[in-house]
Amino acid sequence: MLKRYLLSPGPTPVPEKVLLDMAMPMIHHRTSEFSNIFKEVREGLKPIFGTRQDVLILAGSGTAAMEAAVVNTLNEGDKVLVVNAGKFGKRWVEIATTYGLDVITIDIEWGRSVKPDQVESKLIAHPEIKAVLVQASETSTTAYHPIEEIGKIVSLRDETLLIVDGITSVGVYETKMDEWGIDILITGSQKAFMLPPGLALIALSEKAWKFTEKSRIPKFYLNLKKERKSQLENTTSWTPAVSLIIGLKSVLEIMNKEGLPNVYKRHALCAEATRKGLMAMGFELLAKDIPSNSATGIVLPEGFDGGKFVKLMREKAGLTFAGGQDHLKGKILRVSHLGYHDFFDTIIALSSLEIGFSQFGLKVELGAGVKVAEEIFKNHLGV
Amino acid sequence: MLKRYLLSPGPTPVPEKVLLDMAMPMIHHRTSEFSNIFKEVREGLKPIFGTRQDVLILAGSGTAAMEAAVVNTLNEGDKVLVVNAGKFGKRWVEIATTYGLDVITIDIEWGRSVKPDQVESKLIAHPEIKAVLVQASETSTTAYHPIEEIGKIVSLRDETLLIVDGITSVGVYETKMDEWGIDILITGSQKAFMLPPGLALIALSEKAWKFTEKSRIPKFYLNLKKERKSQLENTTSWTPAVSLIIGLKSVLEIMNKEGLPNVYKRHALCAEATRKGLMAMGFELLAKDIPSNSATGIVLPEGFDGGKFVKLMREKAGLTFAGGQDHLKGKILRVSHLGYHDFFDTIIALSSLEIGFSQFGLKVELGAGVKVAEEIFKNHLGV
Repeated sequence: MLKRYLLSPGPTPVPEKVLLDMAMPMIHHRTSEFSNIFKEVREGLKPIFGTRQDVLILAGSGTAAMEAAVVNTLNEGDKVLVVNAGKFGKRWVEIATTYGLDVITIDIEWGRSVKPDQVESKLIAHPEIKAVLVQASETSTTAYHPIEEIGKIVSLRDETLLIVDGITSVGVYETKMDEWGIDILITGSQKAFMLPPGLALIALSEKAWKFTEKSRIPKFYLNLKKERKSQLENTTSWTPAVSLIIGLKSVLEIMNKEGLPNVYKRHALCAEATRKGLMAMGFELLAKDIPSNSATGIVLPEGFDGGKFVKLMREKAGLTFAGGQDHLKGKILRVSHLGYHDFFDTIIALSSLEIGFSQFGLKVELGAGVKVAEEIFKNHLGV
Repeated sequence: MLKRYLLSPGPTPVPEKVLLDMAMPMIHHRTSEFSNIFKEVREGLKPIFGTRQDVLILAGSGTAAMEAAVVNTLNEGDKVLVVNAGKFGKRWVEIATTYGLDVITIDIEWGRSVKPDQVESKLIAHPEIKAVLVQASETSTTAYHPIEEIGKIVSLRDETLLIVDGITSVGVYETKMDEWGIDILITGSQKAFMLPPGLALIALSEKAWKFTEKSRIPKFYLNLKKERKSQLENTTSWTPAVSLIIGLKSVLEIMNKEGLPNVYKRHALCAEATRKGLMAMGFELLAKDIPSNSATGIVLPEGFDGGKFVKLMREKAGLTFAGGQDHLKGKILRVSHLGYHDFFDTIIALSSLEIGFSQFGLKVELGAGVKVAEEIFKNHLGV
């Protein structure tokens, strides 16, 4: 028997009830039955985004929503500022470059968080910047960027949008899109929303909707103005991913039953326990400034074969962790706290790493990380 | 108890085994486990497309693949010929116009099929045409266009691509993409592939791949060259719709167990029985020239409230048929034969229409359509 544990920052485990709800017979999407579900999930997403705006639901992965943000609001030649601090920061650069934008970057060592001052300096030096593109949580480095503070800076400028990839922050942190001055906020289904991949979610501020009026980049499948018009009528422009939207209804019920403040607190506690547990095991965190509550990355010792470790842990022991991407490949390990993940998933993560690293020849005190995590969880178990 | 019957041309019923396979716990997409599944489905799709080329699997609806076909092979100002014979022909026009192509159309009454001569004449009159865009089966009118014959004409021209929307033809008809000279063939998951919506499938000929080298329309999420490179290594550029791909593996097993020739024959028999059954009930077919084997459309009598009929049949009797779109709204009814649909689904469709239409005041002889269908099925039941 090989029991499986999915501990990677997306896809994340899907609750059993959600899997079964999605396994109900297919329904047609041009019916009141589907429209009622769609209306319910549209409303349910707003408090999680912290917005009164519509949250549009697209069939696609998170990258589709990132592209949609750019092609619906900007124009060729527009200057944009990208916080380039990891693989997904780099993706903003690639998308913006593809569409002929004039990209300037704040290049940050992988694992560090941007300082709001750095953004402000660039905006002062280049007042013509049309948009700041940033990750809230940079999944590749497990670092969080101070979005609320960046929002305060960007929202003072009428001619500049703040476009935030919240793929691993929405549903993890309390997020106040409207209050913080986020103009576009994006997420995907396979992270805190506990669903299989295949849905992208995107909300635009009134300011961003005004930008869409001036954007001349051609778009069809990702035309958000058209999509908004459809979704205001509780339908979609193109065939929606019906089963995932049914799953989303079920997920929102689970999140609301737990209570959003408890959802965020659970993520924070699991993240804290993982960080302190791994440090107690002797590891250094990859995120130096503000570690994200979505996942924790650690630096593996020089010469340690991280790729082989991740592979063997998955194939022989049933535990799926994530390694590093690009130049961090094989050099780091990432542990998720996302979505359908509770205290004991964190305990399993730490325990399996204690055993696994020991087996791989690292000097790790068995039980050391688990003990620290238990200390953190003990007042929160509700018994 | 209200038992449900999904008889619309997409989404179509999903086999119970496929629903349950998709309800298995989520797996990570950057693993050998997923890559092995992905490799298997990639191979399994080729005979259904009738191609030795790679069939790329995208997270999105069919429209995303239609857009991908255009933006990856053509350029602003290119002249293209669209067979404009229904809602989806119109969609080709909209996509091509969005990207600044020079669109000429063959405008055809909804329900009619294009004649190969009409395509040839346009190609002779406008030898600079870079692509012919057509539906194989125009779902909105239930008419089939003679793709094999059009292929013979277009494939003689090195500088013209044949781009075919096979959304309701692939998996319904034996399709020989390579032999017929189709350069791009598209389909979606929620038709003959018996899955929920959310996957788009697209294959390109060598000629089409050459066109991609010259296409300068910007694209990112739908960049097929990048996607091909990833998928050749049994992975994807962006996070794939994991559960739907697992479902696709299961669907291909079901299709191959039945045998592809039997799959196509079953569609043909159900379509024939539906057509003849509805004609026996006194209806006129919407498709005048070549009715499609994916769905059958009938013209409703003048003054009959088709919208109300479809709604009541669904809400009160549990049967989901499709009405008409755009100017045919309320005026036609469409019955699907797609995917997980057997002889007795056709019997249910006919029987429920006999009863429903009678209740709605039409003079229909009860049992008349069912009898004709039984005559057609009687030699094929395998007893």
